[in-house]
Amino acid sequence: MKFRTKVCVLGTGGQTQFGHLPDWTLERLVTTAAREALHSAGIEPSDVQAGFLGDCAGALFNRQSLTSSLLAETDPALYTLPMTRFENACASASAAVMGAATSILAGLHECVLVAGVEKMRGEGPRPDMRFVGEVLGTCAHPEDQALGGFVFPRLFARFMRAYMDRFGASEQELASVAVKNTFHAGLNPLAQLHGKSLALEDAAVASERNPYLFDGLPLKTRECCQVTDGAAALVLCSEEFARSLGQPYVTIEGFGQASDRLSLSSRDLTHAEGLHRAVRDAYSMAGIGPEQIDLAEVHDCFTIAEVLCVEALGKAEPGKGAAMAMDGETYHDRSFPVNTSGGRIGMGHPVGATGLAMLRELCLQHHGLAGGRQVRQVRNAALVNFGGPFAAVYAYVTALQRV
Amino acid sequence: MKFRTKVCVLGTGGQTQFGHLPDWTLERLVTTAAREALHSAGIEPSDVQAGFLGDCAGALFNRQSLTSSLLAETDPALYTLPMTRFENACASASAAVMGAATSILAGLHECVLVAGVEKMRGEGPRPDMRFVGEVLGTCAHPEDQALGGFVFPRLFARFMRAYMDRFGASEQELASVAVKNTFHAGLNPLAQLHGKSLALEDAAVASERNPYLFDGLPLKTRECCQVTDGAAALVLCSEEFARSLGQPYVTIEGFGQASDRLSLSSRDLTHAEGLHRAVRDAYSMAGIGPEQIDLAEVHDCFTIAEVLCVEALGKAEPGKGAAMAMDGETYHDRSFPVNTSGGRIGMGHPVGATGLAMLRELCLQHHGLAGGRQVRQVRNAALVNFGGPFAAVYAYVTALQRV
Repeated sequence: MKFRTKVCVLGTGGQTQFGHLPDWTLERLVTTAAREALHSAGIEPSDVQAGFLGDCAGALFNRQSLTSSLLAETDPALYTLPMTRFENACASASAAVMGAATSILAGLHECVLVAGVEKMRGEGPRPDMRFVGEVLGTCAHPEDQALGGFVFPRLFARFMRAYMDRFGASEQELASVAVKNTFHAGLNPLAQLHGKSLALEDAAVASERNPYLFDGLPLKTRECCQVTDGAAALVLCSEEFARSLGQPYVTIEGFGQASDRLSLSSRDLTHAEGLHRAVRDAYSMAGIGPEQIDLAEVHDCFTIAEVLCVEALGKAEPGKGAAMAMDGETYHDRSFPVNTSGGRIGMGHPVGATGLAMLRELCLQHHGLAGGRQVRQVRNAALVNFGGPFAAVYAYVTALQRV
Repeated sequence: MKFRTKVCVLGTGGQTQFGHLPDWTLERLVTTAAREALHSAGIEPSDVQAGFLGDCAGALFNRQSLTSSLLAETDPALYTLPMTRFENACASASAAVMGAATSILAGLHECVLVAGVEKMRGEGPRPDMRFVGEVLGTCAHPEDQALGGFVFPRLFARFMRAYMDRFGASEQELASVAVKNTFHAGLNPLAQLHGKSLALEDAAVASERNPYLFDGLPLKTRECCQVTDGAAALVLCSEEFARSLGQPYVTIEGFGQASDRLSLSSRDLTHAEGLHRAVRDAYSMAGIGPEQIDLAEVHDCFTIAEVLCVEALGKAEPGKGAAMAMDGETYHDRSFPVNTSGGRIGMGHPVGATGLAMLRELCLQHHGLAGGRQVRQVRNAALVNFGGPFAAVYAYVTALQRV
């Protein structure tokens, strides 16, 4: 496929603190991240031609639909621009990125603003896990919803069980993903678990503070993502527009989008065809393979998910991803850094913002601005963000362009 | 702007009955409309490269998010394709159309499936109006939500008051819109009010069966859209793909998307800048003006809204739209037919499907397949669909191409 331009990311975007932000409205979250993104991009608000907003469940969490209109409040220059909200579950921000990128490829716009947001924790000091489970459970198939609360932990616990049975992986190997991501969060000031630490023993062994979530299934509390308030934003543009600014910029060299059937009863739990299809398409468009990818941000909603994404990226053989994590190879200073941000387990998972926070982390790494978690060599980076049980998958390959 | 292709509509799409369909799941609604659209387009499911789904509030009405994945169930050929859900309130289907059109303009896809759905009525024989009001109210600004239930009727009642005060329009003139649209619904077998009739006196005069909804504001029950279950779908493609089939097809000659600020307190209630901007852009892209438009489908969520849209399209002077309706000029066999489908008041308003049902009506008219409501001369047609108080606006200009 030949397109009129590459899609570029200007600057390193904006991101609020990830965590518990009871005093922040959705509008404040979105506009704070968006204004920071405009500033980082080095452009004027009047350069923006359209807005794209990812939000998974603002209607249920915050009684707010039409959240795209909140993005217009970033600046008076945006008041009458086209604004569109995207929802593809936990890949809602990537759906917005894809919509924004497509508008640039089409020639509709030269420069656009993309943001993602979720405010999931409510007012109290601890999230209402039953409510959060019910809300996110609406992203599952009706038949799977009928299984009851905490639908996604149960679905991924089944993925975990199938993976362990097929490949002989251990609970300790899978738990090492959570240990590594919590460590990375300690290197990211915006991460929800910044300042926390997690020992392998405390993650791998079931205990009062780390119980099995479902009888007969291996998933434990420490292997789950956080419940998070937060927003992230980026400015995307055409290559001509990016070049005109005279600064280095990141290009999205390739992307892929695919899906899988929502209902798990129709699926082989050890293979997610949509996941592999999205990665294949992203590599094909970028014209490169796994060996040229130096780091990745992937969707660690649960430890098993990170492992499946790393394998789909071709950085570990099928069934070997858990052992690779256990060997420490996915730490920020090792052979293939994964989730240097801290990931969904350590940085946090405001579901509608996640895809953008991932892309922002890759931009920080490309520009050498990732601080204590900076990866040494960054030629190309990869991203995998998905929603539901791989029912909506997005994969990206990025690179830095020096002017 | 010069694009690689025009965006085309194949066939006349698919649409379920609009009304109360308690036994239909969201999946059945979506896939029924989608399969009919594929059949009407004369293509194979394997010709489809991506899916785009509009749904406003499935999360609140039906406890279902990630509804894009339901569209994949249309056919096994679609199981792993990219699928994306769009939500821009009552313009959600148009947001999906815009996403689909953009993907074709970008060259990402040659042929895609677009659908919209909403199931609003619940199980009982009558809709729970308090619940419906609360759900749709989430599309309003938090400050306006604080006004209480039935938010949108109240907002548009204020638009209506402002219009009547400024231009001296009468309640009778505005009510005539509802009379005409109910009449048109009688000519459309899929319309919710098919078989019903409405006399001007019964619409224009407040009564026990047609009460004022709010003290001091002129809006009455008969001037409101229906609460509806339903789905609609269309196949969009590039012009090269359309030509290869050797059948007449409809082109989207121009489109515009714009917004207005969500909060009404920041707005002049007699002028919707976003509405005018979207129409201006659509005309500009199509290279034509109001005089070449022979009919329109516009967003009559309330009688006042149809009048504002007709004026924005330049088919009536500002303040003259209500009198034009009263004069009968917007009936299907008069000078400027508006909402020949029956509109939101007569055909029904499954909010996430509405934009596609509007576009489908224009396709039926272009192909001469609109039965008893067929308009005599159809060179170009226009469409205005919006969400919220003009917070998301879409305008299209369409034409028929003979091969």
